[in-house]
Amino acid sequence: MALQALVFDAYGTLFDVHAVIRRCEEFWPGKGLQLSQAWRAKQLEYTWQRSLMRRYVPFSQVTREALAYACESLQLGLGRGKADALMGEYLKLALYPDVAGTLEKLKSRLAILSNGSPDMLGPLVQNSGLKVDAVLSVDELKIFKPAPQVYQLAVDRLGVAKEHIGFVSSNCWDALGARSFGFTVYWINRGGAPVDRLGFQPDKIATSLHEVLL
Amino acid sequence: MALQALVFDAYGTLFDVHAVIRRCEEFWPGKGLQLSQAWRAKQLEYTWQRSLMRRYVPFSQVTREALAYACESLQLGLGRGKADALMGEYLKLALYPDVAGTLEKLKSRLAILSNGSPDMLGPLVQNSGLKVDAVLSVDELKIFKPAPQVYQLAVDRLGVAKEHIGFVSSNCWDALGARSFGFTVYWINRGGAPVDRLGFQPDKIATSLHEVLL
Repeated sequence: MALQALVFDAYGTLFDVHAVIRRCEEFWPGKGLQLSQAWRAKQLEYTWQRSLMRRYVPFSQVTREALAYACESLQLGLGRGKADALMGEYLKLALYPDVAGTLEKLKSRLAILSNGSPDMLGPLVQNSGLKVDAVLSVDELKIFKPAPQVYQLAVDRLGVAKEHIGFVSSNCWDALGARSFGFTVYWINRGGAPVDRLGFQPDKIATSLHEVLL
Repeated sequence: MALQALVFDAYGTLFDVHAVIRRCEEFWPGKGLQLSQAWRAKQLEYTWQRSLMRRYVPFSQVTREALAYACESLQLGLGRGKADALMGEYLKLALYPDVAGTLEKLKSRLAILSNGSPDMLGPLVQNSGLKVDAVLSVDELKIFKPAPQVYQLAVDRLGVAKEHIGFVSSNCWDALGARSFGFTVYWINRGGAPVDRLGFQPDKIATSLHEVLL
């Protein structure tokens, strides 16, 4: 396969969001998993709903608002201190163990394409030490994934035709959005989930980055 | 308030979807609630994701695909017979007890504005005996709520300016999408949920149709 560039989703694909779950559990013992799941679900809903409403705000704001909703729905008290601490976790997430070793061996151009706004994504990539050719945020487009113009951003910035771009995501709907756009896609199915029914199939399904790319 | 028309969401607002839960429970004892929640969540996700991907398919197909996903995720066997039976429930949902009595008393023009495709919505309204001036489906626009053009459809079809339209939904994000568009909105909070954080507030929050409209 003549792929000239590989484009990676960030959260859940390269970066392990489990540190957020641990911190939730510290603050609200016994509720950490439930809260973090509710938070993540609402965060994604808001990205889709705001995109359709044409009421984009940066992912940092969406994430903070989703946290407030999730805490209220579970009747967990959230002050400014806890909110700041949880948002702070997003800036220093660990890479999955298979990431650094895999990316080093790749010869193609590498990019990150994320919903994350620059105020979240910039510090995160900086802290991780990861070396990529481009860090692309939907923020300049004011719309979230899986809108096709998001994937087009990678084409424009990398200067590589979509037929020669491979896209890697652990979010099936993101992978299928990229497939619908025209990328070759790898779905990293870390959680053993079914394939989403969105009219497309991933080109390859794997359980780790290592398995897909080497 | 000089509202000349009231526009209602269908599923969960006028029509009680609990019959679907009961049927799920019949097929998979002990799993009915969990399945119906997973089904509904995925159904909505697919409407948002497909809208953003520009890959619209009718709500009947979205609903069937979400059911297949939800059953696979819970490892519940779903054959054609069960799928057809569950989809069939959607065509004969009961009205909430407060609907018929409330709507009869209203002097303004009444419409339904739904994600439901005509193959679902037509039989449902027919079976219910409900009398409204217009039954509007997003299907002709090929995009789902909360895209603003969906709410514009009601303006166009009713010939009433948006400032004079009241919109009623039990889905908070739908109510806020309508509020963002410019309708006066009533959120029927049947489940005691928090207000979604989408940059808008409902004009009124109530627990039943009766409470809002009289």
